[in-house]
Amino acid sequence: MATKAKKSAKKRAGKIQYVYEFGKKTDGDSKMKELLGGKGANLAEMARIGLPVPPGFTITTEVCTYFYDHKRSYPKTLAKEVKAAVTTVEKQLGKKFGDTKNPLLFSVRSGARESMPGMMDTILNLGLNDETVEALAQKSGNERFAYDCYRRFIQMYGDVVMGVQPESENDHEPFDEVMSQLKKEVKASEDNDLTVDDLKELIKRYKALIKKKTKGAFPQDVYEQLWGAVGAVFSSWQNERATIYRQKYNISAEWGTAVNVQAMVFGNMGDSCATGVAFTRDPANGEKVFYGEYLINAQGEDVVAGVRTPNPIAMLADEMPKSHAELVKVCAKLEKHFKDMQDFEFTIEDTVLYMLQTRNGKRTGLAAVRIAAEMVKERLINEKTAVQRIPADSISSLLVPVFDAAAAKKAKPLTVGLPAGPGAATGHIVFSAAAAERHAEDGVKCVLCRVETSPEDLRGMIASEGILTSRGGVSSHAALVARQMGKVCVCGAADVEIDYAKKTLRVGKTVLKEDDYISIDGTTGEIFAGQIPTAPSEVDQVLNGKLKPAKSYTFQMFDSVMKWADKYRKLGVRTNADTPAQATSAVAFGAEGIGLCRTEHMFFEGDRITFMRQMILAGDETERRKALKKLLPFQRKDFTGLFKAMGGRPVTVRLLDPPLHEFLPNDDAARRAVAEALNITPEVLTARIASLHEENPMLGHRGCRLGISYPEITEMQARAIFEAAAACLNAKKKVDVNVEVMVPLVGFAKELKLQSDLIHKVAAEVMEAKKVKIKYLVGTMVEIPRAAVRSAEIAETAEFFSFGTNDLTQTTLGMSRDDAGAFLGDYKELDILPQNPFASIDQAGVGKLVELGVEGGRSTRKNIKLGVCGEHGGDPASIKFFHGVGLNYVSCSPPRVPVARLAAAQAALA
Amino acid sequence: MATKAKKSAKKRAGKIQYVYEFGKKTDGDSKMKELLGGKGANLAEMARIGLPVPPGFTITTEVCTYFYDHKRSYPKTLAKEVKAAVTTVEKQLGKKFGDTKNPLLFSVRSGARESMPGMMDTILNLGLNDETVEALAQKSGNERFAYDCYRRFIQMYGDVVMGVQPESENDHEPFDEVMSQLKKEVKASEDNDLTVDDLKELIKRYKALIKKKTKGAFPQDVYEQLWGAVGAVFSSWQNERATIYRQKYNISAEWGTAVNVQAMVFGNMGDSCATGVAFTRDPANGEKVFYGEYLINAQGEDVVAGVRTPNPIAMLADEMPKSHAELVKVCAKLEKHFKDMQDFEFTIEDTVLYMLQTRNGKRTGLAAVRIAAEMVKERLINEKTAVQRIPADSISSLLVPVFDAAAAKKAKPLTVGLPAGPGAATGHIVFSAAAAERHAEDGVKCVLCRVETSPEDLRGMIASEGILTSRGGVSSHAALVARQMGKVCVCGAADVEIDYAKKTLRVGKTVLKEDDYISIDGTTGEIFAGQIPTAPSEVDQVLNGKLKPAKSYTFQMFDSVMKWADKYRKLGVRTNADTPAQATSAVAFGAEGIGLCRTEHMFFEGDRITFMRQMILAGDETERRKALKKLLPFQRKDFTGLFKAMGGRPVTVRLLDPPLHEFLPNDDAARRAVAEALNITPEVLTARIASLHEENPMLGHRGCRLGISYPEITEMQARAIFEAAAACLNAKKKVDVNVEVMVPLVGFAKELKLQSDLIHKVAAEVMEAKKVKIKYLVGTMVEIPRAAVRSAEIAETAEFFSFGTNDLTQTTLGMSRDDAGAFLGDYKELDILPQNPFASIDQAGVGKLVELGVEGGRSTRKNIKLGVCGEHGGDPASIKFFHGVGLNYVSCSPPRVPVARLAAAQAALA
Repeated sequence: MATKAKKSAKKRAGKIQYVYEFGKKTDGDSKMKELLGGKGANLAEMARIGLPVPPGFTITTEVCTYFYDHKRSYPKTLAKEVKAAVTTVEKQLGKKFGDTKNPLLFSVRSGARESMPGMMDTILNLGLNDETVEALAQKSGNERFAYDCYRRFIQMYGDVVMGVQPESENDHEPFDEVMSQLKKEVKASEDNDLTVDDLKELIKRYKALIKKKTKGAFPQDVYEQLWGAVGAVFSSWQNERATIYRQKYNISAEWGTAVNVQAMVFGNMGDSCATGVAFTRDPANGEKVFYGEYLINAQGEDVVAGVRTPNPIAMLADEMPKSHAELVKVCAKLEKHFKDMQDFEFTIEDTVLYMLQTRNGKRTGLAAVRIAAEMVKERLINEKTAVQRIPADSISSLLVPVFDAAAAKKAKPLTVGLPAGPGAATGHIVFSAAAAERHAEDGVKCVLCRVETSPEDLRGMIASEGILTSRGGVSSHAALVARQMGKVCVCGAADVEIDYAKKTLRVGKTVLKEDDYISIDGTTGEIFAGQIPTAPSEVDQVLNGKLKPAKSYTFQMFDSVMKWADKYRKLGVRTNADTPAQATSAVAFGAEGIGLCRTEHMFFEGDRITFMRQMILAGDETERRKALKKLLPFQRKDFTGLFKAMGGRPVTVRLLDPPLHEFLPNDDAARRAVAEALNITPEVLTARIASLHEENPMLGHRGCRLGISYPEITEMQARAIFEAAAACLNAKKKVDVNVEVMVPLVGFAKELKLQSDLIHKVAAEVMEAKKVKIKYLVGTMVEIPRAAVRSAEIAETAEFFSFGTNDLTQTTLGMSRDDAGAFLGDYKELDILPQNPFASIDQAGVGKLVELGVEGGRSTRKNIKLGVCGEHGGDPASIKFFHGVGLNYVSCSPPRVPVARLAAAQAALA
Repeated sequence: MATKAKKSAKKRAGKIQYVYEFGKKTDGDSKMKELLGGKGANLAEMARIGLPVPPGFTITTEVCTYFYDHKRSYPKTLAKEVKAAVTTVEKQLGKKFGDTKNPLLFSVRSGARESMPGMMDTILNLGLNDETVEALAQKSGNERFAYDCYRRFIQMYGDVVMGVQPESENDHEPFDEVMSQLKKEVKASEDNDLTVDDLKELIKRYKALIKKKTKGAFPQDVYEQLWGAVGAVFSSWQNERATIYRQKYNISAEWGTAVNVQAMVFGNMGDSCATGVAFTRDPANGEKVFYGEYLINAQGEDVVAGVRTPNPIAMLADEMPKSHAELVKVCAKLEKHFKDMQDFEFTIEDTVLYMLQTRNGKRTGLAAVRIAAEMVKERLINEKTAVQRIPADSISSLLVPVFDAAAAKKAKPLTVGLPAGPGAATGHIVFSAAAAERHAEDGVKCVLCRVETSPEDLRGMIASEGILTSRGGVSSHAALVARQMGKVCVCGAADVEIDYAKKTLRVGKTVLKEDDYISIDGTTGEIFAGQIPTAPSEVDQVLNGKLKPAKSYTFQMFDSVMKWADKYRKLGVRTNADTPAQATSAVAFGAEGIGLCRTEHMFFEGDRITFMRQMILAGDETERRKALKKLLPFQRKDFTGLFKAMGGRPVTVRLLDPPLHEFLPNDDAARRAVAEALNITPEVLTARIASLHEENPMLGHRGCRLGISYPEITEMQARAIFEAAAACLNAKKKVDVNVEVMVPLVGFAKELKLQSDLIHKVAAEVMEAKKVKIKYLVGTMVEIPRAAVRSAEIAETAEFFSFGTNDLTQTTLGMSRDDAGAFLGDYKELDILPQNPFASIDQAGVGKLVELGVEGGRSTRKNIKLGVCGEHGGDPASIKFFHGVGLNYVSCSPPRVPVARLAAAQAALA
């Protein structure tokens, strides 16, 4: 166990210090989280800056390590150190541990480097025994309080330290059972109904229970109690619950926990007492207000347990104005010192305030942005810190339409699917793309509910407010398109049963019919029956000119953070866009170019699909060229629009990529139409369609293989691109063009050479004919392992690489995005995969091939342009990786552009 | 052009020699093929060893390089050297080039480092003009002969050097047209009917034609003729035909051709003349007999052109006994000198024998083996040379059933498909597996003809003599199974149209019906209508104990070659076998273990498929375990049989690998049976089947992903393996067992760890229960790129790697074996791929990942066992690669084992 803690221990010359005191004399500070744990380090820090912390001491994580390395024993010097620390506390408070007059009581709590809430054990009221309890009764003037503390202590100690626990899953908690029995006997309905005598009887019975179950006795010696509790806390580091939690959150078992022993303070000694948890700012929206809740006459656990409903902290200003004022000052002091929003626990004992814990508060995305932005204004932190502190994904929460907060609070989700397209949507249920289009024409909002979606549903998806699917993961067609279009989407909601025939959507016993209202939250994955009103984001309104920047505080925050990000990032950020509308929206979000224009998406609209089908199902090259000729003007128009929207920014156009059968007609009418257009019988058409069937279309006749088999397709697409470019350049209002023609799915250098030669030939022809010089590059996607491995060779022709990490993941992992749903759940549960490899790049595997690709590409062509398109381009962890391997840019869907800008800055600052 | 030739030229200090003479004085030898070309070097060598070579000289390949580097001009010193060489020839023969009394004539021929038959140009009878033709007439006493030579020369020269050629594809050859016209005029039906005067007229007209077409005149100056011819030969190196040929056979354009200028000798000067081509041994079967054919009174081209049918060489013993005897001596001398079977050309001019060319003769596989084996016996070559000289694939030709040679000779193939399972088969046409089984029961031989095959056809395939498919490549299911079972198979015969409904098989206009006879040759891919008798190989008969080794010369040859191979190879050779019968056959062929036992093949037989389906379609783990329990005894029995057959040799068992839906019932009856067994409605069953559908099954829920999702499957298989092992070890007649449990499709170290832990647990349980120690390893297949990239990590658990290069090729290239047929043709034609990557490993791409895998594996576990299973394990080029990267063994289908042994030896000797 060569932990860091161990190493740092060795560094300290001479005797190793195992116990760190805090209080009037404080040994530690907030930087010592590895040695003292988070709680211990921050208790020390609070003590240092003069906040009212009950004195105590921390037994270091090194002792935990020693404990497990030495058969659960302690270092020799520990006992002496603990004794000395207890003495310090005794002196400071004028009480004595185990004293029968003025007894000192302790709480014993765990505290690891990272918070593991509720995973390890805690003992309160330690130091009570048959004699000290009497002293506590006298001192507090509250006999019932004292005996209640004692019986709670015995119960906790008996359970945690002495192991008196239910023998099987069906058994009741044994102490609870004893208490229930007593309550029955004395006819008490609540715990509070028990008299002091009842409590004394209960204590007797508790002790008897321990004796019976353990053959030992509840210890009266307070040091025996203390060592028992310390051992139990260290032992709980390896309990099953904690072990599973650590695996899940990737916390090393070698870190160990510290043990915090602290003088007890009581929030439950009467109505001049209270306990609470609070935040220095609102963790939900980031507003700079004192936020929290408290209970009068209660112990900390009562606030969390939810037995009594706590009061909002503002009420404390009325009930205990002095304490409230003190707390407001504490807030300011904490933030000034910790430079971040704090989440803290406090107890008021007899009007005196005590701080029991503080830590950086968890917050929503929105709050993260607001707090960081405002703290820069308040000069608490600088821009770099602000940029680094906002989880990059959070910025999205400023951009999505959301449910009206009040309405959403009341609603209860039917079930939860995968959050696939952030935002909130509400509308009538429709089960087909056609129905969605009909509703849209009538101005009726609807949510498209499908088992899964296909390219044929595209128009229906556009017409809907949101998309719900019962099958398919976050990389399914529905999710991909939704993100691309910024549509709200919940996918793979396995509990949802959709019956197209009956036109029903069932979740358990709830059955919704077509046209019933449904609401979905693509940020959380929640699905609600009924209508919940939504609101568009202010940032969108400003970017679309519907709202003045000055009128939107949200936009101002967004804008500040984005400007800071752009100041520090090194990676360029482009977008994946297929239409001028998407391109314009992405530019508004800060995209510096198009990294991926998927030309095939252009083939589904209007009549084009018909010509596309004619092209695919043509019997020979002549017929194919005839259909291509009809497609050319459409493509040219599309590209012209795209170039205009991008105004001279680089535009990467990928040539036709998907297997051709994706475009084939599924229904009889469409088939008949194609057969007629081609002047062939339906039988011949059916045979041609059948001949296009593939076992594994992902690995089939697609990508540049199409252009190799049918060079006339590449020729047409190249012509459309260059003619569009020429038109822009030659227009009265000249538009600059900077186009990058991308050949997909290249594995062999010669594939690219052949396609590249053809593209250059067409470019030369167009430039000659239109008397214009077009700025363009020809490059390739690196999306199959062979391309990564042979990148040096391919770079002889390629002027740029774009890593298509979606397909590269599929091939490197041998894992189909469409089919992985069947086992990815098991894989996550068994911790085989740290995350969905289609959402965040598998750095060790796929990433290795990206590295090989970069290396090879640069070895041949020093200045080769390197980018990444595909889903990973919008994922912060992946962006950090891409920054690390030295790509020039990432490209992602328009709504992810701000996330990518921020993540790129964080990568550069890391 | 930094060719080797150029470099070697620079090495020779001082003046560069461009012309190498041969004859009485000879400058070159057979080792100088790079500089003199194959033909030139061997002419020199023959001259050196005293064979009667007409004198001449070779202009080196360096001149060709110079020619192309210097705008088709020659080195300054060349003319002088040529002149000198001509003078040498003149002196030697007492003739003079261009002399009007005793003219010397030359042939001018190309000759590259490697033979490119018919690709480049040749000029004969060079040196004839209006005057020398007269001299030739006088000298030969045969005016007609002389003028015929002259008109042939003008025609050849006009065509090749002066470019008088048809102007379009539809035009006739212009010289032929002129001759036809003349023949019409003089009413001559054959060329031979033309008189001397006719020939003179023809010559006039030929000259006029040249004048008209080229605005130049046919040159009368013999040196002008010579330089024209030399230039034409050099130019023909870059003609389209030659360029395509070079691309196809991977010959570098930079090598260049030499030009051989040699004194003409005439086989067509009368009946004391002859010309022929001959082999020192029979190139078809390797027998040591003088073999060849000749024509009396003919030029060399006549033998090849096939206008007259040549006589077998034996007849020459009667017609020209002296020359025949001389030739027999020449044969002996050639073989003694060249140490290999020679293919040579000769001309007899007026009873005098001249040698015009010799080279190593091409031969069939059978002949290659026999010649090598016998040459060792004759002490012409040693064992190492013999092993290296036999193309490894050739050994297969000793092992396959073949068509009766006489019958096959008469048959004409209907069409040709891909040769997928070597050997010959004949039988009745059946179109379904069921029909094949019925026929087999009745003892009727049949050939299963399918569009493609699926695992459900397995029993039908076993029942057939051979398999013919109209779709799918050499790695399709049909081909794979055929090779595995040693079945004759022709696949992907695109011209064959199979109509299941009409039960017809159509090729063009030929329509065959069910039960008609068909014959297929899986070695050549030929398909014949009707019955052609077959014969089993003698080697098989010996190995099966049906023939004594002493009775079979074929077997003795086979045995010798295999023993030599085993002496030199370093790679182990295992086999892919799923049944004891296959295993036994493979051991007979020399397999040293099983490298791949595909357990899923075991699930198709008999009742097992029913239980398998119950397992797959089970609703929960309990139901699944119930079905698995029924499968366990079958698996245990299978493994017991396999272990017994292998008697202690290593047996690698791969756990369940293919996607489960491969096992699903396709027909209603089978579906009903499964539904009943599972006690569910057909609707529920249909839904479950639908839920197993995958978009890309190759990348889906298969391999270890099944074992991860359903550990109970792995558990059952492990139990079956270890219980079988225990049974063998505990049997009265103890059988040693050495088992390697292989987890398929691992990409993540933890996948293997989880499966491996489970396997070790089951092993421990069985060993404890059966009180026996089982020798076993647990390892994995490396078959997806991630496994190769993370091999170091995976080797922490894996005790062996087996590279599954079939799937590794699919994923690395992003190319589905089942679907690649759609474009592999284009890819081959465009030379994107040097060969089918599923037949021979893509060394640059997939090979790179194998290297990474080997490196990583050995870095973690120095002695990790490394092998390869899958199709590439039987491919000689791939085996050479695997030897190079340091694998321990290859594994291939049983009939490929001898090929692999030989290829492994060749790799070691290379």
